[in-house]
Amino acid sequence: MLALFSDASVIALALGFEGALARAEAAEGVIPEAMAEIIATASANLVLVPEELAEAAAHAGTLAIPLVKSLRDTVPEDVASFVHFGATSQDVADTVLMCQVKRAISLLAADHGRIVKALGVLAERHAATPAIGRTLLQDALPIGLGLRFAQWLAGIDNAWHRLANESEKNAKIAFGGPAGTRAGFDGKGAAVAKRLAEALNLAVGVPWHGRRTGTAAIGAALGILIGALAKMARDISLLAQNAIGEVREPTIAGRGGSSAMAHKRNPTGCQIALAAAHRAPGLVAAMLASLPAEEERGLGGWQAEGPVLADLFLLASGSIAVMADVAEGLDINEAAIAHNLSAARLGDDIGESQTIVEAILSFHRKE
Amino acid sequence: MLALFSDASVIALALGFEGALARAEAAEGVIPEAMAEIIATASANLVLVPEELAEAAAHAGTLAIPLVKSLRDTVPEDVASFVHFGATSQDVADTVLMCQVKRAISLLAADHGRIVKALGVLAERHAATPAIGRTLLQDALPIGLGLRFAQWLAGIDNAWHRLANESEKNAKIAFGGPAGTRAGFDGKGAAVAKRLAEALNLAVGVPWHGRRTGTAAIGAALGILIGALAKMARDISLLAQNAIGEVREPTIAGRGGSSAMAHKRNPTGCQIALAAAHRAPGLVAAMLASLPAEEERGLGGWQAEGPVLADLFLLASGSIAVMADVAEGLDINEAAIAHNLSAARLGDDIGESQTIVEAILSFHRKE
Amino acid sequence: MLALFSDASVIALALGFEGALARAEAAEGVIPEAMAEIIATASANLVLVPEELAEAAAHAGTLAIPLVKSLRDTVPEDVASFVHFGATSQDVADTVLMCQVKRAISLLAADHGRIVKALGVLAERHAATPAIGRTLLQDALPIGLGLRFAQWLAGIDNAWHRLANESEKNAKIAFGGPAGTRAGFDGKGAAVAKRLAEALNLAVGVPWHGRRTGTAAIGAALGILIGALAKMARDISLLAQNAIGEVREPTIAGRGGSSAMAHKRNPTGCQIALAAAHRAPGLVAAMLASLPAEEERGLGGWQAEGPVLADLFLLASGSIAVMADVAEGLDINEAAIAHNLSAARLGDDIGESQTIVEAILSFHRKE
Amino acid sequence: MLALFSDASVIALALGFEGALARAEAAEGVIPEAMAEIIATASANLVLVPEELAEAAAHAGTLAIPLVKSLRDTVPEDVASFVHFGATSQDVADTVLMCQVKRAISLLAADHGRIVKALGVLAERHAATPAIGRTLLQDALPIGLGLRFAQWLAGIDNAWHRLANESEKNAKIAFGGPAGTRAGFDGKGAAVAKRLAEALNLAVGVPWHGRRTGTAAIGAALGILIGALAKMARDISLLAQNAIGEVREPTIAGRGGSSAMAHKRNPTGCQIALAAAHRAPGLVAAMLASLPAEEERGLGGWQAEGPVLADLFLLASGSIAVMADVAEGLDINEAAIAHNLSAARLGDDIGESQTIVEAILSFHRKE
Repeated sequence: MLALFSDASVIALALGFEGALARAEAAEGVIPEAMAEIIATASANLVLVPEELAEAAAHAGTLAIPLVKSLRDTVPEDVASFVHFGATSQDVADTVLMCQVKRAISLLAADHGRIVKALGVLAERHAATPAIGRTLLQDALPIGLGLRFAQWLAGIDNAWHRLANESEKNAKIAFGGPAGTRAGFDGKGAAVAKRLAEALNLAVGVPWHGRRTGTAAIGAALGILIGALAKMARDISLLAQNAIGEVREPTIAGRGGSSAMAHKRNPTGCQIALAAAHRAPGLVAAMLASLPAEEERGLGGWQAEGPVLADLFLLASGSIAVMADVAEGLDINEAAIAHNLSAARLGDDIGESQTIVEAILSFHRKE
Repeated sequence: MLALFSDASVIALALGFEGALARAEAAEGVIPEAMAEIIATASANLVLVPEELAEAAAHAGTLAIPLVKSLRDTVPEDVASFVHFGATSQDVADTVLMCQVKRAISLLAADHGRIVKALGVLAERHAATPAIGRTLLQDALPIGLGLRFAQWLAGIDNAWHRLANESEKNAKIAFGGPAGTRAGFDGKGAAVAKRLAEALNLAVGVPWHGRRTGTAAIGAALGILIGALAKMARDISLLAQNAIGEVREPTIAGRGGSSAMAHKRNPTGCQIALAAAHRAPGLVAAMLASLPAEEERGLGGWQAEGPVLADLFLLASGSIAVMADVAEGLDINEAAIAHNLSAARLGDDIGESQTIVEAILSFHRKE
Repeated sequence: MLALFSDASVIALALGFEGALARAEAAEGVIPEAMAEIIATASANLVLVPEELAEAAAHAGTLAIPLVKSLRDTVPEDVASFVHFGATSQDVADTVLMCQVKRAISLLAADHGRIVKALGVLAERHAATPAIGRTLLQDALPIGLGLRFAQWLAGIDNAWHRLANESEKNAKIAFGGPAGTRAGFDGKGAAVAKRLAEALNLAVGVPWHGRRTGTAAIGAALGILIGALAKMARDISLLAQNAIGEVREPTIAGRGGSSAMAHKRNPTGCQIALAAAHRAPGLVAAMLASLPAEEERGLGGWQAEGPVLADLFLLASGSIAVMADVAEGLDINEAAIAHNLSAARLGDDIGESQTIVEAILSFHRKE
Repeated sequence: MLALFSDASVIALALGFEGALARAEAAEGVIPEAMAEIIATASANLVLVPEELAEAAAHAGTLAIPLVKSLRDTVPEDVASFVHFGATSQDVADTVLMCQVKRAISLLAADHGRIVKALGVLAERHAATPAIGRTLLQDALPIGLGLRFAQWLAGIDNAWHRLANESEKNAKIAFGGPAGTRAGFDGKGAAVAKRLAEALNLAVGVPWHGRRTGTAAIGAALGILIGALAKMARDISLLAQNAIGEVREPTIAGRGGSSAMAHKRNPTGCQIALAAAHRAPGLVAAMLASLPAEEERGLGGWQAEGPVLADLFLLASGSIAVMADVAEGLDINEAAIAHNLSAARLGDDIGESQTIVEAILSFHRKE
């Protein structure tokens, strides 16, 4: 995930955009075929130093300016004007971002699968095991232990489907040209857009430079996923308190130790997920703050979205990976569970816990 | 909307929950039919002073405690124990909130319809009118004026469908009992839940006390809607600057004046929508912050959600009503538009603006 | 605090502004003395229906317009033009807000005094009592129990002094007139401002319509105070878990019960403080979002600040009152503390806990 | 600033902490002098690969664990146990953060000086130049042009002094050991702390592991500074609109161009400052969210602060540098200002603009 959101990756995706754009334009007769091939080849072969380009982009206020300039400098003079033809900086920036979104979702999917599978097994296995349920941080009434796991699963899976759905709907190319009108294509802009989207494996749509609902929705969905993972982490860290001891994170070499206390086994996976959830709400707030963009393409809003969305994906990625490990290796202490239940003196009636677990599992299997 | 989220409304909905619960339980044989009728009648007739109950609720930390106590006090002693049978405070609080969500969406729908209709007409009418497009607050290239209106519509409508969808999926009753296990119903909890949901016109689902993805998603969708409305407001306030003068809010008696400057015509509708968008991101952040709830029912998180979601609905409501007025009466100065276009000396090629407008309108008509 | 931020209070303070303004202007010869007395008397006697005015203000986009109109309607025609002379809506709104800030701080001060005193006593009394310290939610090493209380005190008191200091520096009248230039006073604007500030018991300063650092800083200081109170609440709610049982909130009639579980004693005071801390960060974010105000007086930013700052004060007020009660009546279970310490098998060396407690107490006594 | 917050810098500062700690402990007789010298020398010479250590830290959940291990591995076996003696991971992490804070403030100071000087000159020079003032994005009344510049200066300087003051007060070493009690030093912990603070050029204080008011306050002050800079950027970007044209950013080679429109001169400096202000409120919200830390050292909160505070400093740094350039080279078009003033037909009475400018400048010179 770090690699996907690195400067090097952004450059590679941006060059990929320029190459695919030239070919799409040539296929529709907007620019000469031969020129397009030269541009596409140059894009594929151009080597740029990420640090240098990042600095130039920071100075220029956008990556596209120095990148397009570099690309133009490497092709023959008569080809240069066909580079980036009809496009604008934001077309590149937004399309690159959406390529990253789509790939990032794929990267998350594997860990999501792991976590859902592991929690499903735990929920089923322990559906009927009585444990004391706690509300407002006080002992309340017994629950089926598996209900707790099923609820984690339900929250995470709900959040996952929202994210996948928003990504599916909104991971579109951005291709509108300077004012979002697709000017200069002799009416072939929509056709070029279609080809470009196919080449980049993104959905096609009308230009959306000043309309940021899609990026905001993806950001919000990520925030919800991070929160759902942190719900599981919150519970595990509480249940792992020494006086409770019902579950613990699995022992993973080099994790959870203390620099000063050899006896400690810290809930470090939970810490990572909880730290992510401390940061996510503010990052989502930043995504929403860019919605009231100025006119055809705004000033300061969409330019802030890239790094914020990257942070959200990195946090989600770190969190889901670590919680998948925790789910797969969760260390359950049935004796402590039984002891705490009995200490609460509230009986062992787990109500319809099992039915609820089954309902949750069956719903999520269908999805 | 203010009435819907008032203390009086919360009390009425909470009493409605208790009455419907008693009847649903009686229908499944969980409590005696006669007792249920007494409770339902008492719920329907009980008059509580909102200020007093609000104070008692603030003191007790939840509305349900003093409300259930009042209800128990009004029924015969042998009926009292069947009041609120098997339910918990949070069942009441969350169900009331979801009743409010569902009704609030209906209230918003009318204004949403107005705004979409008005912007659709404007977009179509002005699709081919050239105007200067502006990016990064600088003149960029010409656009079809209608494209601007179509983009507003696309953003607002996209946000609306997300909100309606999240509400549809998540406006469920909360009914799990103290630890979310539906204990004490002899296995009839799910059936009671089904009846209760029907009576309250909400969807049914498994208990979700500690799983806050649904409320978070509704909150985020509201924040995106508020932002999409503010996008329209941002543009109008910029286009209404004296030196630009392309559009103005309609004249509405008592609005837009200045306490000190008789010559001014302030963009007061836009102000309302923009002020809402200043507040919404932080409110959404608060909704997300409650996701990592503690154990079966959390401490401090879900209790914070009610007032925050109410604020979001109130802001959305104020914003959409005022922007619907603005859309319906938008004062368009074609001479100023032509003048500004010509002053920019960038020609009048509006590219594929018309095609894009048509694509947007046709997509949103289908939805 | 609710009364202070009610519509009725805002109206009273706004009328107080208009009366004091008239007299300050008369004292400097800007308007005739006799007119000023009529205006001041009318301001003092005018009865406005809060609901009606609130509606008119919502419609007009500012309270000042309907309020000034009402006031002008009640005075003779030749006096009317001297009402609100030289002032602008935002002068009224911002000055009223700062009057509220100043009074709100006074209201908080009493509870702050209570909490600091109670925690100071606890810290001193238990400085040498060994208890197990916990880090990352795991038993770590022993601490002096009083150190925990002293740390709560240190955080709350630090936050309090920041808030008091920001209020002291920034609770200034707003008085700049329509464009913030104090036009129309023949050079006597600064003198009028000085008199007005004295009458309203606020500091004087240059106009600050478009410069929102003061309100942002007060908002941030409130957010930090709410967070510091929630730190204490977090700890108490954790220490009150059944398996730990080291402290509990005091028993307060009607608080902490459960609608369904008679055996429960919920940490309801902590819940209130923690719920406040769930909302505060987003509210502070909203205050900061209004900093980049447009030109001489912005659109949508400062208009959003009033309700947000009111929310922050209400949350702080609810939180500090309840935590003062908790501090004063904290129920400490020394047997449980000793038991947990011994169960941890980590000895009883509390290091320099006592010295640290003394250092904290001595620092905060000096302040 | 990027270098200061890089992994390499964190490692260097952390090793500096370990070396200084050893020497401070030796000076107080806590560990043998000879051992301390070996550790200090090893700390100074140890070369760690930032990428490797970052990965190990991410895995372990804290940097201190792999760093201390590496350091122990490089010293003789009998010295190893004196490395990091009595300290805890969070001592290292928080102290490193505060070293960064202090240095970061120094880095910002130079640009702050530039901006204040440049705006002071502009404010004085143009104090009496009439320009149209604008409120709610509409022409309002004339102002002295210099008043606008003075207000920018007042906001930025106010924010700067808050930040400097919070840094002064809170940039303290963290030194409390595992449970914040300074255990294991035979009563010499406070003396060691004093020496350590001197060596690291930070203030000394009692342990603050679980008390996050200081970091929250620094974060909030940064957010306010970023907002105050964005206020200036907002105004310049509005005044630079083609139809207004009163000011423009200076021409800087490679900045402000457009990838597609050669005629454009984009307000790229303002874009950077405005983008920063889109992100800052949410980052401050994240800082505040960590206040309710759990017990002696929390789980997930303080661990999230480091990257958030780094982001805030990086945004502040980028913003202040670019706005200092803009202030120094601001391109003022007096003809356009006169034209817009005359077009507004609102006269040229600038009220007491000059007096207000003088008051602002004299106040800020004193500070």
